Amino acid sequence: MSIPKTMKAAVSKEFGKPLVIEEVEVPRPKAGEVLVKIEACGVCHTDLHAVDGDWPIKPKSNLIPGHEGIGKIVELGDGVTHLKIGDIVGIPWLYSACGHCEHCFGGWETLCESQKNGGYSVNGGFAEYAVADANYVGVCDPKLSHKELIDLAPILCAGVTVYKGLKMTEAKPGEWVTISGIGGLGHLAVQYAKAMGLRIAAVDVADDKLELAKRYGAEVVANAKTEDVVEKIRKETKGGTHGVLVTAVSPKAFEQAVKIARRGGTVAMNGLPPGEFPLEIFGMILNGVTVRGSIVGTRLDLQEAIEFAQTGRVKAHVSAAVKLEQVNEVFDKMRKGQIEGRMVLDMGA
Amino acid sequence: MSIPKTMKAAVSKEFGKPLVIEEVEVPRPKAGEVLVKIEACGVCHTDLHAVDGDWPIKPKSNLIPGHEGIGKIVELGDGVTHLKIGDIVGIPWLYSACGHCEHCFGGWETLCESQKNGGYSVNGGFAEYAVADANYVGVCDPKLSHKELIDLAPILCAGVTVYKGLKMTEAKPGEWVTISGIGGLGHLAVQYAKAMGLRIAAVDVADDKLELAKRYGAEVVANAKTEDVVEKIRKETKGGTHGVLVTAVSPKAFEQAVKIARRGGTVAMNGLPPGEFPLEIFGMILNGVTVRGSIVGTRLDLQEAIEFAQTGRVKAHVSAAVKLEQVNEVFDKMRKGQIEGRMVLDMGA
Amino acid sequence: MSIPKTMKAAVSKEFGKPLVIEEVEVPRPKAGEVLVKIEACGVCHTDLHAVDGDWPIKPKSNLIPGHEGIGKIVELGDGVTHLKIGDIVGIPWLYSACGHCEHCFGGWETLCESQKNGGYSVNGGFAEYAVADANYVGVCDPKLSHKELIDLAPILCAGVTVYKGLKMTEAKPGEWVTISGIGGLGHLAVQYAKAMGLRIAAVDVADDKLELAKRYGAEVVANAKTEDVVEKIRKETKGGTHGVLVTAVSPKAFEQAVKIARRGGTVAMNGLPPGEFPLEIFGMILNGVTVRGSIVGTRLDLQEAIEFAQTGRVKAHVSAAVKLEQVNEVFDKMRKGQIEGRMVLDMGA
Amino acid sequence: MSIPKTMKAAVSKEFGKPLVIEEVEVPRPKAGEVLVKIEACGVCHTDLHAVDGDWPIKPKSNLIPGHEGIGKIVELGDGVTHLKIGDIVGIPWLYSACGHCEHCFGGWETLCESQKNGGYSVNGGFAEYAVADANYVGVCDPKLSHKELIDLAPILCAGVTVYKGLKMTEAKPGEWVTISGIGGLGHLAVQYAKAMGLRIAAVDVADDKLELAKRYGAEVVANAKTEDVVEKIRKETKGGTHGVLVTAVSPKAFEQAVKIARRGGTVAMNGLPPGEFPLEIFGMILNGVTVRGSIVGTRLDLQEAIEFAQTGRVKAHVSAAVKLEQVNEVFDKMRKGQIEGRMVLDMGA
Repeated sequence: MSIPKTMKAAVSKEFGKPLVIEEVEVPRPKAGEVLVKIEACGVCHTDLHAVDGDWPIKPKSNLIPGHEGIGKIVELGDGVTHLKIGDIVGIPWLYSACGHCEHCFGGWETLCESQKNGGYSVNGGFAEYAVADANYVGVCDPKLSHKELIDLAPILCAGVTVYKGLKMTEAKPGEWVTISGIGGLGHLAVQYAKAMGLRIAAVDVADDKLELAKRYGAEVVANAKTEDVVEKIRKETKGGTHGVLVTAVSPKAFEQAVKIARRGGTVAMNGLPPGEFPLEIFGMILNGVTVRGSIVGTRLDLQEAIEFAQTGRVKAHVSAAVKLEQVNEVFDKMRKGQIEGRMVLDMGA
Repeated sequence: MSIPKTMKAAVSKEFGKPLVIEEVEVPRPKAGEVLVKIEACGVCHTDLHAVDGDWPIKPKSNLIPGHEGIGKIVELGDGVTHLKIGDIVGIPWLYSACGHCEHCFGGWETLCESQKNGGYSVNGGFAEYAVADANYVGVCDPKLSHKELIDLAPILCAGVTVYKGLKMTEAKPGEWVTISGIGGLGHLAVQYAKAMGLRIAAVDVADDKLELAKRYGAEVVANAKTEDVVEKIRKETKGGTHGVLVTAVSPKAFEQAVKIARRGGTVAMNGLPPGEFPLEIFGMILNGVTVRGSIVGTRLDLQEAIEFAQTGRVKAHVSAAVKLEQVNEVFDKMRKGQIEGRMVLDMGA
Repeated sequence: MSIPKTMKAAVSKEFGKPLVIEEVEVPRPKAGEVLVKIEACGVCHTDLHAVDGDWPIKPKSNLIPGHEGIGKIVELGDGVTHLKIGDIVGIPWLYSACGHCEHCFGGWETLCESQKNGGYSVNGGFAEYAVADANYVGVCDPKLSHKELIDLAPILCAGVTVYKGLKMTEAKPGEWVTISGIGGLGHLAVQYAKAMGLRIAAVDVADDKLELAKRYGAEVVANAKTEDVVEKIRKETKGGTHGVLVTAVSPKAFEQAVKIARRGGTVAMNGLPPGEFPLEIFGMILNGVTVRGSIVGTRLDLQEAIEFAQTGRVKAHVSAAVKLEQVNEVFDKMRKGQIEGRMVLDMGA
Repeated sequence: MSIPKTMKAAVSKEFGKPLVIEEVEVPRPKAGEVLVKIEACGVCHTDLHAVDGDWPIKPKSNLIPGHEGIGKIVELGDGVTHLKIGDIVGIPWLYSACGHCEHCFGGWETLCESQKNGGYSVNGGFAEYAVADANYVGVCDPKLSHKELIDLAPILCAGVTVYKGLKMTEAKPGEWVTISGIGGLGHLAVQYAKAMGLRIAAVDVADDKLELAKRYGAEVVANAKTEDVVEKIRKETKGGTHGVLVTAVSPKAFEQAVKIARRGGTVAMNGLPPGEFPLEIFGMILNGVTVRGSIVGTRLDLQEAIEFAQTGRVKAHVSAAVKLEQVNEVFDKMRKGQIEGRMVLDMGA
């Protein structure tokens, strides 16, 4: 496979402005890196934050966003021996980490303070090619078809995030978990929870999302707009759920989550609304509740999350796979909250 | 030892009024219970809440408060075979629990929704005698002297509470823990932390308390009135402490605690100020922080907490041991925040 | 429901002799106990060991065996308030424990040195009625039919034993576990493993058992008579399985299990062959393998094991439900290894 | 500091023959590596196994042994930015690992099947200079004196091995641990156990070793030659110890260890005698005992083990620091079991 000199990419030129589709140089892998020919890349809400410059720490200039890119390795940097040309890999949000801090040593590289982030501090997958760190890619089954790779792309961020979040609730097989928010993350969370042997309560503000949750295996559903979700779930699960995973981008959902938790239970926070929520001290102590933040997942989590997906136990709902040129339309839909499940850029389209 | 018909006790007749010292009937142990001749009983802030009727769930009427009572068994109820007359036991806040809910089954009887609480829903240790559940007492070394029992009394609540709280931070030997608030609970927490092999940072608003913490082994101290405690502790511990135990009765202390926690660290809440505190979502997630409530300790925790104390590795600072008749003076001092360490009622005085 | 004075029971009069079916007095519940009208009772290999007097600690004389008895409560002893007449409960091997040792305190009452065992140190379920400790029964769904209770009986020992054993392997959802021995215990283990989100390799010496394992969800099967099971499983699971549960009553199976374990993996021992097996030290250390014993399960384990079964995720294969009078025939079959799955005494037959 | 072209090293020319002291080329660090000027290197029994070619997998030819080398960085390979010239580092047994297998991802690089081992598959610290992988060195306090480095050297293998072993017993502060074998490893284990808040029982066959253990804080000691250690320890610790760490190179010690373990306790194996030991199945199951192998420690363990030592809570007993030229004399003493504590090669001598 010959590698061209230039490639098509979606580039962020100025915060808040549409991405520009342009020809840029194909990057070359340095030592320890690989070059990946992207087949598909999911679009995540974080990409929108990146191009809008929403967060205190800004992304690199002339950023190519995207941290759900997946494709075939076409070139190996020096010293890469455990991967080979033709392998299929995903390039996640955790692009790389320092490798020698206490967090990296401890299998918690997601907490590394020197980490690089794909499609943020380094270029990502909204392009025909992308470079990746060979020790930080998710390795996929080389027999997957192009169509399957499109479905797999959202696992690289949405999937691994909720999978790790579920782990962080410490709910064990047979126990109850509430998934709050059945959107791009939540619809995957219900499936992972099911595959992990958990019993599921689902919360959303839309009845069709709750129907979807039921089809994926939720036994209890509650509409936060029309029902007292705390009372309903506590009653139907006889005391609240052991775990609560909040994917909803709503501080209110966090407050509810603490009350949905069973005595001794754990709330894991995935959703990233700005601001804070009030934590009631007496209840936390009397009920022995734990609340914790959880961000994406480690490389081991990623590999496990991929494994669940490529063995058919979890499947992202990709509402549409579109061309790279349509990325700004995807962002528009996202801004309006019109995306169901996940939209994916199909680089082969 | 002959048991009298009546005994001296401090009784709460009306919320907010002083306790009345009066002669009441000596209670008799039912099946599974023991009668204890109280030698000493610590005075806890919770006793004040009880007699003031501060909490939503009210204590029993004509309450005899006290949940740090310690003394000799003088009578056995039917079926009690593992204890004998003359054994020294402590009667803790967790007076008894149902014994068959999921929390009781799981070794988490502190979360039992049918628990009874000593000196609250049943009579406690501000009296010459008290009844206890034989399966819920803390069993002490029978060779302890009267003076040693006075020192041991505060372990029954203050001691076990911070010991369990430290466990709940999941800080391991060699790691750092911050103790926020070096009062009745905190001065014990520093000692337990030391005995558990932890490295200690201490926070208080009074320099003499911080000096005390240093003497007990704290390596870093910070005055929340005069210093930026978050910055100081994060710097001196190179990134914050793995655990943070908040014994301070101050929502502000909780907010600080979350920021003192190292990435991946855990804040355990012991202090019980009314109200809530704002939890900043982005920081919790980015830093992977855990916040959890912790109340007293299980029977196993209690037994361990006692063992640390009676082998000399932890010792409560009893600022004064006074007569039962002085209990209202103790409450006055407590209301004014004038108690250093712990005050104990000495029933042998 | 009126309770008769006498009942039919299968009584062990002399070690090694057939049980005698005779009329004996119906026992009456003491304080904290309940009387259960038995509907069904599974027959376990341990019952055979009891009536043969195989073990160093002997059972009570005139023993009524059976520790998988299930039925309706017909009488409550003094002080029992959390159960009521008509409730359906199971009476397990762990008939009761002391309630105040460190193991009982810690939620590990299965390790209590003062435990009583159903159908061994106290009478069990091979009778029309049996007494149980109200705090140690497994509580079942009161809507279950007689037929469903027959299927549920084996969960009380075989089910909870393998369920706990699987927990003790510490294999997490998505990881691999080997089930060695697909008999009365193993066929349930495969189902529990599946329900817990584990991937399964199965080992037996009979191809039909391996076929059964496949139907229950095993992805890899190996015949210990005709294949190199260690090599096959290590290869197909890319390095061995994270957990290995040995239900086979064969020291050889334990040796194999240690070699099947993945680096860092855990072998849990359920099978109870007499004797010992050689543990190779270098391999244990180099591979970081853990080997541990596991016996039945705690009350919490039991409740969870029942929940899996009564929600339809696990179902014992009851090859035959026979009359109490046929118990000696069941023992004969058991001695000859002719029982597939589990045989149950149907007291309603 | 100018780096010479050649250096003095102790080289293994032929299995079973004395090491040859000769001038060899100073190695140069490749990308990601550092060059260390060795100040001291402990001598471990594994070095003897290496030069004797005792193990199935043979070391490299012309091996320079030593995996407790410690010294100053004098040259940085390409891309090394988190270390600088002058930093003091130790080069452990775990010289490097692949960085991308499931074990490496999970913070268990000690189980990596592609690991390189210092002084075994790559050259080690019995020389004036050695190369190390920058991501696998133990980083030490740069203010340590030459004398302190000599004392620190044994922590790099002996220290971290027992520290990790103690962790693997899962004994918690306040609980009991038995250290079996009070030699080069064991005398450090007692100190680590003390610093971790554990209560200690010690076993050896020499009374002077037991005296040493007492001085380091052991509360119970038992001589395996003259006493029934199982009975004594079980009695004095009221039921056996929660953890047992076997450093003794004796299969018999392992058998005893299983019996010393408290119900629910854990035996960690550090000692590496050839062969196997019989594991009694019934006892393992009835007592719920866990047995596991543990080899050296991860990078995080190493860093923690070093921290304990350089803050003065643990200190190796270095019986003699000798010149590199005396290495064969050290081996002779080792063969005869005449070394007390640890002997260290002092490259500055």
